[in-house]
Amino acid sequence: MFKINENYLKLPGSYLFSTIAKKVAAYKEANPDRQVISLGIGDVTQPLAPAVIEALHRAVDEMGAAETFHGYAPDLGYEFLRRAIIDNDYRSRSVDIALDEVFVSDGAKSDSGNIVDIFAVDNRIAVTDPVYPVYVDSNAMSGKTGEYIKEKECWSNVIYMPCTAENNFVPHFPDETPDIIYICCPNNPTGTTLKKEELQKWVDYANDKKAVIIYDAAYEAYISESDVPHSIYECDGAKTCAIEMRSFSKNAGFTGTRLGFTVVPKELKSSGTSLNQLWARRHGTKFNGAPYIIQRAGEAVYSEAGKAQTKQQIAYYMKNASQIREELTNMGYTVFGGVNAPYIWLQTPEGMKSWDFFDVLLERANVVGTPGSGFGPSGEGYFRLTAFGSAESTAQALERIRAL
Amino acid sequence: MFKINENYLKLPGSYLFSTIAKKVAAYKEANPDRQVISLGIGDVTQPLAPAVIEALHRAVDEMGAAETFHGYAPDLGYEFLRRAIIDNDYRSRSVDIALDEVFVSDGAKSDSGNIVDIFAVDNRIAVTDPVYPVYVDSNAMSGKTGEYIKEKECWSNVIYMPCTAENNFVPHFPDETPDIIYICCPNNPTGTTLKKEELQKWVDYANDKKAVIIYDAAYEAYISESDVPHSIYECDGAKTCAIEMRSFSKNAGFTGTRLGFTVVPKELKSSGTSLNQLWARRHGTKFNGAPYIIQRAGEAVYSEAGKAQTKQQIAYYMKNASQIREELTNMGYTVFGGVNAPYIWLQTPEGMKSWDFFDVLLERANVVGTPGSGFGPSGEGYFRLTAFGSAESTAQALERIRAL
Repeated sequence: MFKINENYLKLPGSYLFSTIAKKVAAYKEANPDRQVISLGIGDVTQPLAPAVIEALHRAVDEMGAAETFHGYAPDLGYEFLRRAIIDNDYRSRSVDIALDEVFVSDGAKSDSGNIVDIFAVDNRIAVTDPVYPVYVDSNAMSGKTGEYIKEKECWSNVIYMPCTAENNFVPHFPDETPDIIYICCPNNPTGTTLKKEELQKWVDYANDKKAVIIYDAAYEAYISESDVPHSIYECDGAKTCAIEMRSFSKNAGFTGTRLGFTVVPKELKSSGTSLNQLWARRHGTKFNGAPYIIQRAGEAVYSEAGKAQTKQQIAYYMKNASQIREELTNMGYTVFGGVNAPYIWLQTPEGMKSWDFFDVLLERANVVGTPGSGFGPSGEGYFRLTAFGSAESTAQALERIRAL
Repeated sequence: MFKINENYLKLPGSYLFSTIAKKVAAYKEANPDRQVISLGIGDVTQPLAPAVIEALHRAVDEMGAAETFHGYAPDLGYEFLRRAIIDNDYRSRSVDIALDEVFVSDGAKSDSGNIVDIFAVDNRIAVTDPVYPVYVDSNAMSGKTGEYIKEKECWSNVIYMPCTAENNFVPHFPDETPDIIYICCPNNPTGTTLKKEELQKWVDYANDKKAVIIYDAAYEAYISESDVPHSIYECDGAKTCAIEMRSFSKNAGFTGTRLGFTVVPKELKSSGTSLNQLWARRHGTKFNGAPYIIQRAGEAVYSEAGKAQTKQQIAYYMKNASQIREELTNMGYTVFGGVNAPYIWLQTPEGMKSWDFFDVLLERANVVGTPGSGFGPSGEGYFRLTAFGSAESTAQALERIRAL
């Protein structure tokens, strides 16, 4: 008789964004005349850049002729893309990454979920709190998180590192020693960052404890301040303790186009076994590459025109971010993030519960955001707004919030 | 201190096709004047069908304008594609599959590798032997296969079901009772099939033993005989015991375009928990959908023009298959497959070892195939040729084999 993976049964309720989608749908059905604006889910709205569109058309044409047709891609991804990544994202910042340390994938969500495969069950994970739910859920599914404690909304075997206004969103080293540490910087959901000297301390800590850092840099392109690192490998010693994940979703609007990559340095080892080799095996056995035409689109993001055009898109979203920041501050809200990230993290007024504020915003302003508590216990009393809307809808949402 | 998943260390050597690639590269380097023809890896060579190319261009244009841009896809895939799948692959064969039982993915390799996630470690798997390596390797990586026994080239906790000329490539029910049974039909690598009444017996067996069948139907489009089932759900009772995987790689040449889907019926349950729900959770947490433009390409495969064009491609490959079958038979080889599948499975002459025949073919005919033993112990003494080459190179390869 077959047996299911019972760890799945321990997962609490539904995924945060499904719950929100259901609440919004119910509200819209009951109030068909209201026009609801979403500053909720982190999905982009600007179209793909012209340089990317051109590259896609060219690659599609290649797929239509036998002489230029492409079948199975190389396991790690096409060299033209890995080379563009290395030159633009790493060499330009004096970071030396080898071609076979870059693994092209269908996105950072898949990679950050699948990376758990190469680690043993008895690793203790540490996450910043609030946190992107995929890190915890994927570990829960593979049996690494213990039991879910409903009243505390947390897992018995996960080390939560609170990131709140009190510690300026910089996690302290935990009392218990973790084996795997998840850091997302610029952070989703708080929109805050670690400065390079702060990240260096975490790299030193990980090397000291022989822990591994899973570093999610999906929002790297939004960094505007010079003391915030773009890659963890800017820190000394990071290659012996860190795996870095990147995405084309937010820097080039690829949420529906699907492309990302993970860097696993060969120096990162456990008892002589390189994690690069383990991930290569996982990648080669359980994945078959991103589509050729999508890899060509990714290459175009690094072309001169692509860089200029995607920079404009980011500027567009960041203008929304600073508008949200500024106006909410003027309204009296306490606001974080939005400087090096497309997320604004605000304190709910008068200590209101996150989900109560969600209801108020939905019902009275017809604006959808994300309740902070959905990202973890320390998110309670906070609320996330994204800068990914159009300039018009963002302005309108702010007007409605002002009128509350 | 972090610990790796030590199951990875048990995996034997490198992936079959990497070994072949290395051998071929070495031969080419030593013999730069020889033109090597590959009938080895199962990669297609014909370009994408015009209807698919058109759909891709249209979808690319949509991604370039804000009004028609697509961000994150629905978790299960776009409804337009799932509906086309249901109508064309199932309803047309009187099989009733619901919209939320179809999960669109980036390919059958990913799905057949990832499906292990939803099962407990202590399941006993059974595979036909020879077998597509991903089924076994993905189970090995998740600790379900015991220890690798090098001298026998098999795993201690896997039930191997020999499929050879002796049993006409129809596996017998094993002595020990399996929990999870992998069936690939039409079969990779043997190119043989189960008839509907034979598959029905396996469905009845699985229901009786409360086992689950992972049914890989990636080569379904190559079926030419009427008594071979296109879907396992054509068998009575299959919805309570079977998961079916399909691919666009071989029916429409999507090996480098990446699209597939998995059907998990809601009736398939373990102690009241539906596997559909578990896979939905896995899919939603560790995957973010196939690209919008690729899903539109998949939809176009089901258009009238798409169907006609891909049918032509299949006929092209199947003409190669019957030519290989016929000519090898005339040369005195004993040959199987190639009627309902693009693979020809031949017995090596005079009981030669599979790898020895590989060397002879490479060195003396400059033709690359795949040694049967690479697919499992019962593949020893067999050899796989694929029909995915061009008509010209296939004819030339046959000429060279004749001259041996």
